[in-house]
Amino acid sequence: MNTVKGTRDFLPAEALIKQNIIERMKKVFETYGFQPLETPALESWEVLSTKGAGGEEILKETYNFEDLGGRRIALRYDLTVPLARVIAMNPNLSLPFKRYQIQNVWRYGDVAKDRFREFLQADIDTVGSNTMVADAEIIACVISTLTELGFEKFKVRLNNRKILSALVKYAGVPEEKVIETFRIIDKLIKIGERGVEKELIGKGISKEASKKILEFIKIKGDLVLEKAEKLIEDKEGIEELKQIISYLKSMKVEPKFEIDLSLARGLDYYTGPIFEVFAEEGIGSIVGGGRYDKMIGLFSGKDVPATGISFGIERIIEVMKERKMIEVKKSNVKVFVVAVNDKVRDKVLEIVQILRNNSIPADFDLRSRSLSKQLDYANSLGIPNVIIVGEKELESNSVKLKKMDTGKEISLKIDDMVKSF
Amino acid sequence: MNTVKGTRDFLPAEALIKQNIIERMKKVFETYGFQPLETPALESWEVLSTKGAGGEEILKETYNFEDLGGRRIALRYDLTVPLARVIAMNPNLSLPFKRYQIQNVWRYGDVAKDRFREFLQADIDTVGSNTMVADAEIIACVISTLTELGFEKFKVRLNNRKILSALVKYAGVPEEKVIETFRIIDKLIKIGERGVEKELIGKGISKEASKKILEFIKIKGDLVLEKAEKLIEDKEGIEELKQIISYLKSMKVEPKFEIDLSLARGLDYYTGPIFEVFAEEGIGSIVGGGRYDKMIGLFSGKDVPATGISFGIERIIEVMKERKMIEVKKSNVKVFVVAVNDKVRDKVLEIVQILRNNSIPADFDLRSRSLSKQLDYANSLGIPNVIIVGEKELESNSVKLKKMDTGKEISLKIDDMVKSF
Repeated sequence: MNTVKGTRDFLPAEALIKQNIIERMKKVFETYGFQPLETPALESWEVLSTKGAGGEEILKETYNFEDLGGRRIALRYDLTVPLARVIAMNPNLSLPFKRYQIQNVWRYGDVAKDRFREFLQADIDTVGSNTMVADAEIIACVISTLTELGFEKFKVRLNNRKILSALVKYAGVPEEKVIETFRIIDKLIKIGERGVEKELIGKGISKEASKKILEFIKIKGDLVLEKAEKLIEDKEGIEELKQIISYLKSMKVEPKFEIDLSLARGLDYYTGPIFEVFAEEGIGSIVGGGRYDKMIGLFSGKDVPATGISFGIERIIEVMKERKMIEVKKSNVKVFVVAVNDKVRDKVLEIVQILRNNSIPADFDLRSRSLSKQLDYANSLGIPNVIIVGEKELESNSVKLKKMDTGKEISLKIDDMVKSF
Repeated sequence: MNTVKGTRDFLPAEALIKQNIIERMKKVFETYGFQPLETPALESWEVLSTKGAGGEEILKETYNFEDLGGRRIALRYDLTVPLARVIAMNPNLSLPFKRYQIQNVWRYGDVAKDRFREFLQADIDTVGSNTMVADAEIIACVISTLTELGFEKFKVRLNNRKILSALVKYAGVPEEKVIETFRIIDKLIKIGERGVEKELIGKGISKEASKKILEFIKIKGDLVLEKAEKLIEDKEGIEELKQIISYLKSMKVEPKFEIDLSLARGLDYYTGPIFEVFAEEGIGSIVGGGRYDKMIGLFSGKDVPATGISFGIERIIEVMKERKMIEVKKSNVKVFVVAVNDKVRDKVLEIVQILRNNSIPADFDLRSRSLSKQLDYANSLGIPNVIIVGEKELESNSVKLKKMDTGKEISLKIDDMVKSF
């Protein structure tokens, strides 16, 4: 008896953390006007393998199988392709369609300590707007979400695929090596300048071109866009980033964003601004996304502009747990009501029910245990308050309230009980 | 491009309803001390086909396939078998283990208007308690949950498998026909007395036995247990129901429950009290469950008593929609901020962001539309408030607030804006 390889259970302590984080993220998404969407776990292979929607790397890891009726089915690989399908199937949706989606995805890849075959993603996307305000809003929402979760030292790194395209043109990279070049550029933080240069040359990019690329992608500082502008011919990508930054300023969003000309992102379908957040160096990205103005057209037959971002919730949770940004508890019961002896057990039922009817999470013994065993159980779940029901106190309609952290006990009238929590 | 047969998307209007109902259910479950559990969508065939866990009827509908590694995998069929596996895999869990679980399940069955292959269930179960208090608590929680959702005229129907066993013994039904007899008994409400008699005789139950069964299962009224007691020899099941009712009285739970001796429930693994709620006659059950003291032992090797119940959330949602018990809305944005012309668009960004920073769901135009088109969009999503930003008002740091239901407009200082929502 075991879980399937690459999957895991979330016992209450883990599930409570996950729920807490999901609820807080949802609240921020909704204040930004994103509405929930849910799509099925099952998609047809036809949908998932739509040419240009994902590319080879995605297809390689798609969790697919033949169903009992002989159809090739794939489990939801990400939340972007299902969104494109929804847009195609619902041509009368009011645009822009701003949706968030928080659902599991499945990938049939190698399994490792932090690599699962079933894991949770949260995406926000704006479909049907080609203005950079939409991208600025996505970035503002990412900043608000991470801030709400308690992250402080993070930056949303920004770049634009159009800048990278202008760069490879300026450097003279041949058309067929462009995507590969983007992938290598993206590794700058991970493998350093020498590493990037070596890989570029290894892929047959000329020494001169490699040098031009490297000089460009390592431009830093306040005037990065102005400096970049001087080197490349096509300025559209730079113009778009300038607009985004200007919109973010109008929104008075905290400047937790920066231009990073080495950011490229792996997916093929990005067409404009791209975004990424690293929680800290080394750990990899916790949020990533960008504009994809052509992808939905592959499904709907006509181009619909879109931009959006994906949060790797489980990686975010790992970071938050490591940094003690979130409390781990086995139960969110607030009060455990114990019976001193069997004579008062009926009264315990009544008292528990009074608490519950007042929306106070309350529990009691279901195993006819002794007083000390009842206290042990409450303790094992980390329940902070215990109400002790004894015959003597009941004569004056009272109970004892014990705070489990200090051990302090006070007497409490049953009528005043609800007010204490 | 379509959804896979038997599955469907939940666009925002539907997803908002589902979320609202899930949140309200969760809140009640948590006040009753149930903690969340999540299990993977994928289970090994070995787990799902454990003998006695489900029975043939379940295996027939299990959504199973061979994965890319040649393993036989099944999608989660229900939430009870995964719970049993979790208990077996975690022998050190504090008992009782009270968990709720709200997740999708998949069944490869016939597809019809209201029959899907992927649908949502919500279960609460108490594992590790053999006292009838646990069953009473489950019933109390069901009553609180349905009351919270706005249901008024419902009854939790109660019976006990031990009573049914005593009945078939008293009627002289041969051992090998017992399960089949239970299934026919369960149809009393659906097919009536004549129907039940006909089916029993059709299955080879004697006329005399059928008569005895029918007379017993149609006993009604206040003294149903007392009347039943006189007929059958083994009184344990009746004793248990009396205890449950007594506990519910101690809890002062509204008497939205009743004994129904014709209730049998389909699953093989029930061993004691069984529960069911019909939203109304004809529509079928929306909640069902019971005690299963032997099932977990099939996984863990030693018996662990358990009792619990399953809510068919999607059926509950259907009923609530039909009866207009829930508001349908396409968006939960509270305020849409419109720009009178392009000059004020930057100010719109600032105003929207003030609202969002104060947790007020707010949105604005992302398509550079005219004033009237902006209003049309807000209207199409049913957003109740519109803030109109115009140059003249901005001179005095004001905006106009328009209530979309009445069309009434008032002037508002930007500094006082947040207080208005």
